[in-house]
Amino acid sequence: MIFPQIDTPAVLIDLDTAEKNISRFQSHCDANGLRVRPHIKTHKLPQLARMQVEKGAIGITCQKITEAEAMIAEGGIDDVLLTYNVVGPAKLARLRALAQRVRLSVVCDSHAVVKGLSDVFREAPDPLIVLVECDTGAGRCGVQTPEAAAALAQVVAAMPGLHFGGLMTYPPVDAEESVQHWLSRAVTLCEDAGLVVPVVSNGGSPGMWQASKVAATTEYRIGTYVYNDRSLQARGVCDWSDCALTVLATVVSVPTAERAIVDAGSKVLTSDLLGMTGHGHVLGRPDIAISALSEEHGTLNAPQINLHVGDRVRIVPNHACVVSNMLDHVEIVRGSIHEGQAQVTARGQVW
Amino acid sequence: MIFPQIDTPAVLIDLDTAEKNISRFQSHCDANGLRVRPHIKTHKLPQLARMQVEKGAIGITCQKITEAEAMIAEGGIDDVLLTYNVVGPAKLARLRALAQRVRLSVVCDSHAVVKGLSDVFREAPDPLIVLVECDTGAGRCGVQTPEAAAALAQVVAAMPGLHFGGLMTYPPVDAEESVQHWLSRAVTLCEDAGLVVPVVSNGGSPGMWQASKVAATTEYRIGTYVYNDRSLQARGVCDWSDCALTVLATVVSVPTAERAIVDAGSKVLTSDLLGMTGHGHVLGRPDIAISALSEEHGTLNAPQINLHVGDRVRIVPNHACVVSNMLDHVEIVRGSIHEGQAQVTARGQVW
Repeated sequence: MIFPQIDTPAVLIDLDTAEKNISRFQSHCDANGLRVRPHIKTHKLPQLARMQVEKGAIGITCQKITEAEAMIAEGGIDDVLLTYNVVGPAKLARLRALAQRVRLSVVCDSHAVVKGLSDVFREAPDPLIVLVECDTGAGRCGVQTPEAAAALAQVVAAMPGLHFGGLMTYPPVDAEESVQHWLSRAVTLCEDAGLVVPVVSNGGSPGMWQASKVAATTEYRIGTYVYNDRSLQARGVCDWSDCALTVLATVVSVPTAERAIVDAGSKVLTSDLLGMTGHGHVLGRPDIAISALSEEHGTLNAPQINLHVGDRVRIVPNHACVVSNMLDHVEIVRGSIHEGQAQVTARGQVW
Repeated sequence: MIFPQIDTPAVLIDLDTAEKNISRFQSHCDANGLRVRPHIKTHKLPQLARMQVEKGAIGITCQKITEAEAMIAEGGIDDVLLTYNVVGPAKLARLRALAQRVRLSVVCDSHAVVKGLSDVFREAPDPLIVLVECDTGAGRCGVQTPEAAAALAQVVAAMPGLHFGGLMTYPPVDAEESVQHWLSRAVTLCEDAGLVVPVVSNGGSPGMWQASKVAATTEYRIGTYVYNDRSLQARGVCDWSDCALTVLATVVSVPTAERAIVDAGSKVLTSDLLGMTGHGHVLGRPDIAISALSEEHGTLNAPQINLHVGDRVRIVPNHACVVSNMLDHVEIVRGSIHEGQAQVTARGQVW
């Protein structure tokens, strides 16, 4: 039986595999003149943030203030980019407190966000570094044109308490050429306006091996690469052996010759599909489809399921970043060795 | 602004609405001669389990041992049905400990599960009540035919340490007639074999108002009804005003006239679709589609989005049961009054 001492369902993190993934992408970026700023939303574990920095990352990326607070307190991190528009008095007060503990950068994509930041930081001892978020085609946050980016950059530069830190984008997939065009145009417009653009921050695990194709990039933010998952395997970005996060589950029912039920459902694997069919990959059993999830049940189908009650399976989930957010603890392993539990420090919190 | 003292994203539970939902279904079942055994996986809050029992429920249903432990310790619950095959020595040991604290019933659907239960309970002071889970068409766990149900019931009845407690099913939706046929046949076969069938447990919020159509039912398990959600509104089971769980979110970006981004993404709303399009309903804005979720971003689209950075929206999620599992705390409200936070006791745990 696999890891008999671990009760299921459990999220396993193989540190050897994670370490290999971190080193490989760091080397790739070193060879291509890119700085790496990993996004810790994937793991939310201080020990992995520390490992990423020890292997060459210049700092980390966070999505929430609570994530940053946890990584600073327990991971010894001293450089954080918060890639989120910080809005509202409660969060702005915590942002200001955070800035006293770490080299902090944040993003903005509107006058309203810039004004909120300036109102809080105009009396701060040091200016806050603010990057302009650019919508280069992904259709989420961000200013819509290079011209708008340069205009907002000038607003940031002119506002008390703020320092213009550059440009940031979360790019669409497989669009390196248009993203490069967008960003290089924005840099030119900023420079034409007399601004220095110290950082151009691009990111995303799906395009990780094409990172250098967006030549304007100075920093690359990357999250999922530390664990990898079924979505990245499907894109050819990694192999199954590169998947550091797996879900260990027990077969609790074999109702028919074609169906087995495991104790991992949507409250562990989540319902994220990322455009795929099925809810994960059972390692060593490519014939099995995880065809449905209830909250605490996963339905496995195969022409011959050939599993028995009490058997254990290891599942590579569709999307690692959301699975690591589901349980209070993950199990740390190296190969077949179980090293113990780690608390997922920054999960379950509002902001 | 809605609830300015609550930071976002937040899960709001309106206790007045929850109480109304509990009372209404209890009355419906009282009028139809059905006992109610609510499934606490939806809320995982001891205070709501207590309210359900105070209003007439005969006990509660849990999916995990940790859920039961939390409800007994903090909710004063004394009767629990665990609708899950308990497999493996660690869980069986905890199940035996649980049985000493409460009137406990569990389910089984195979000889392997029955043997595991008997091995642990044969030396216990009291027999464990075991129901046979029946797959009446939903295709998850359960024996496949009424004949198999009666055969397994006889195995349970003959095993040391176990007491046959009846039949249990999680039924397919809109199939009351076939479920009734299946269960009544199984009851007859059990009785023909000399067994008493004290309980026939059916369940599910989608079919809640048709509960009495499955005449064999003695107990009804129901979870989502306490909160309701977009999936039940879409089925006509409830109205928006019956939705007790909402997600409070702040607009952080309005990149275009048709798009706004809120700070509630898949790590709060989850990716559960339950067959629908879109990721929730913005109360008061039926023109808005929640077209995409990233982990911490929700993308709202409308012909004229007409929202501003800092605005707040309340979202009815697709599936309440998984949303209440995402954050350590929920905010308890009654109408526009904020009563305080409640810890979601039984979440984030393995089993």
